[in-house]
Amino acid sequence: MDSAERYNRGLKKLDEIHAGLGKQVMERLKEVCPDFERLTTEFAYGDIYSRPGVELRTRQLCTIAALTVLGNGAPQLKAHINGALNLGISRQEIMEVIIQMALYGGFHCAQNALFLAAEVFQERPW
Amino acid sequence: MDSAERYNRGLKKLDEIHAGLGKQVMERLKEVCPDFERLTTEFAYGDIYSRPGVELRTRQLCTIAALTVLGNGAPQLKAHINGALNLGISRQEIMEVIIQMALYGGFHCAQNALFLAAEVFQERPW
Amino acid sequence: MDSAERYNRGLKKLDEIHAGLGKQVMERLKEVCPDFERLTTEFAYGDIYSRPGVELRTRQLCTIAALTVLGNGAPQLKAHINGALNLGISRQEIMEVIIQMALYGGFHCAQNALFLAAEVFQERPW
Amino acid sequence: MDSAERYNRGLKKLDEIHAGLGKQVMERLKEVCPDFERLTTEFAYGDIYSRPGVELRTRQLCTIAALTVLGNGAPQLKAHINGALNLGISRQEIMEVIIQMALYGGFHCAQNALFLAAEVFQERPW
Amino acid sequence: MDSAERYNRGLKKLDEIHAGLGKQVMERLKEVCPDFERLTTEFAYGDIYSRPGVELRTRQLCTIAALTVLGNGAPQLKAHINGALNLGISRQEIMEVIIQMALYGGFHCAQNALFLAAEVFQERPW
Amino acid sequence: MDSAERYNRGLKKLDEIHAGLGKQVMERLKEVCPDFERLTTEFAYGDIYSRPGVELRTRQLCTIAALTVLGNGAPQLKAHINGALNLGISRQEIMEVIIQMALYGGFHCAQNALFLAAEVFQERPW
Repeated sequence: MDSAERYNRGLKKLDEIHAGLGKQVMERLKEVCPDFERLTTEFAYGDIYSRPGVELRTRQLCTIAALTVLGNGAPQLKAHINGALNLGISRQEIMEVIIQMALYGGFHCAQNALFLAAEVFQERPW
Repeated sequence: MDSAERYNRGLKKLDEIHAGLGKQVMERLKEVCPDFERLTTEFAYGDIYSRPGVELRTRQLCTIAALTVLGNGAPQLKAHINGALNLGISRQEIMEVIIQMALYGGFHCAQNALFLAAEVFQERPW
Repeated sequence: MDSAERYNRGLKKLDEIHAGLGKQVMERLKEVCPDFERLTTEFAYGDIYSRPGVELRTRQLCTIAALTVLGNGAPQLKAHINGALNLGISRQEIMEVIIQMALYGGFHCAQNALFLAAEVFQERPW
Repeated sequence: MDSAERYNRGLKKLDEIHAGLGKQVMERLKEVCPDFERLTTEFAYGDIYSRPGVELRTRQLCTIAALTVLGNGAPQLKAHINGALNLGISRQEIMEVIIQMALYGGFHCAQNALFLAAEVFQERPW
Repeated sequence: MDSAERYNRGLKKLDEIHAGLGKQVMERLKEVCPDFERLTTEFAYGDIYSRPGVELRTRQLCTIAALTVLGNGAPQLKAHINGALNLGISRQEIMEVIIQMALYGGFHCAQNALFLAAEVFQERPW
Repeated sequence: MDSAERYNRGLKKLDEIHAGLGKQVMERLKEVCPDFERLTTEFAYGDIYSRPGVELRTRQLCTIAALTVLGNGAPQLKAHINGALNLGISRQEIMEVIIQMALYGGFHCAQNALFLAAEVFQERPW
């Protein structure tokens, strides 16, 4: 599969997950550094998120878990929470995973992620 | 629910997830610092992992995601990979989640987690 | 001790430490995710901060140390700096501990924590 | 070499690297905690950045790499990106190093660092 | 104060805190990279740990807190636990601070630090 | 450029940098999880390290900086230190960059990286 195919597969996956916040981050990234937008779309979305073997919903919750415990990617965490809602994951499931992350990233990381989730929930229609 | 009930609920959840490696870690912890073994069993397993709202299998994969990207809890990551197998999660699903974590914790964290997973896979019968 | 007792002991400890900023964070958390507010109050304040064996003042400075080096919990660090002042810890002691953390979390983490401390000092009457 | 000499050597190195953003951070630090401003100038700039053995340009890019992957020092990362431009490092080189850091700190850290770099580029004349 | 004075003050502070494990780490460091041994002794021990304003015992517990939550400095954490015992801090106090750190660095970090503490306790006479 | 071409370009870059330790890590990875070995070779080495715009020697030192401050990738840090020597970077330059990282990742991270560097230096002929 060549670069253009990977990019297009990545764009489709991005559309599937990231309508809304995630697309905005990627569009801003395209202005700032088009090469990195292309590499991210090709690799993260075209190669990794497009892999079979685990459900996309599970992938999305694992990403929320990872960004919660690292606590250094607020815009991306918001985008992925929004993406989880796009995939039909419930608000409750998202909050459950974040609560659980208090055990691994600390209570402050779970707290901050819940505040970001609340922002996402408020910003979008049901 | 009082402390004894939470502890017992935690022990049951621990048995459900962590037959093998995880139980060994908890037993060693009990020798070293019995208070923290009790607090962990009560809170992490009695309170958090016992919550409804998201499947235990999903919780387990989210924990693997978190410990992979933090990269500072090798014994616990091995125990939770073993726990995932106990819950019927396939080796492929575990490896998929770890591969995905290269995007958030770096390629070195995914690499190290895959090496740990390989150790767990080798140490236990199918 | 049952959940209500732990919650009440946690609330008392929260009042002892966190009049002001910390209480505001917990109240906002209660709106966003009441379960996590309860779990935090019960476990972090009812179980952990209520333990004997080390002075509360020392606990508070250790928390400031931890949040300084992690560098990913600004609102919580501000709340705990405020809590330290509530417990009678001096501004100098707080700044000394933060300065020392340059050795473990990097100079940037100490710098950022000092800026947060300055905000807390400015926001409250002596 | 005594403290005053180290401080002065540090100030010169700070002037060499950090005209603009970095100086502002240090001046604000001097108001908030003069001891830590002195320790930082003496040690970080007087002792470490003044060492021979590796080019200052390389040191600067290594610092950008480190702050990118840690993802918890936005003001310092902006100051060091500005410092890199002061030393004649090109925008492209800075962006290349940040892109590479996606491999070690995650794509979100590279993304956030590129957004900070874009802010620095926009704020200063060519 | 010149470099030799800071070095000597640092050595004295090192002797005060780190008889045993910590001295061994510093001696091995001196063989591997004498410049960094000198810089560490001068700055970390001669400048920072020698500052007044907060008790050395409190400093030591804050360092244990920091290294516990970062979870990436096992030899140094062991050395500082040993140093804490040298200063007359009790095993219970050390374990209390580590337990508390589960709230900020995750339960796995507290667990691993308790296992390291147990090793230190076992290796030294009372 | 298709996947095979990226893989081959990645292999060449890997040979250029990682004769010795790095190749061993990749070969072990290929046994454990061939998909991730392929993704790493294609993306990290075929796409990222093969980009122009910054010298490979500088890239290598930036990677050493990043892995030093994260402190959670010892095998990869050793491999990249070995890779730096393969590219003609001197032992002194490597140690200088690591020393500098004490400012961002803490003294313990620089210390541990220096110990790893000493192991690499000892294991290979000049």
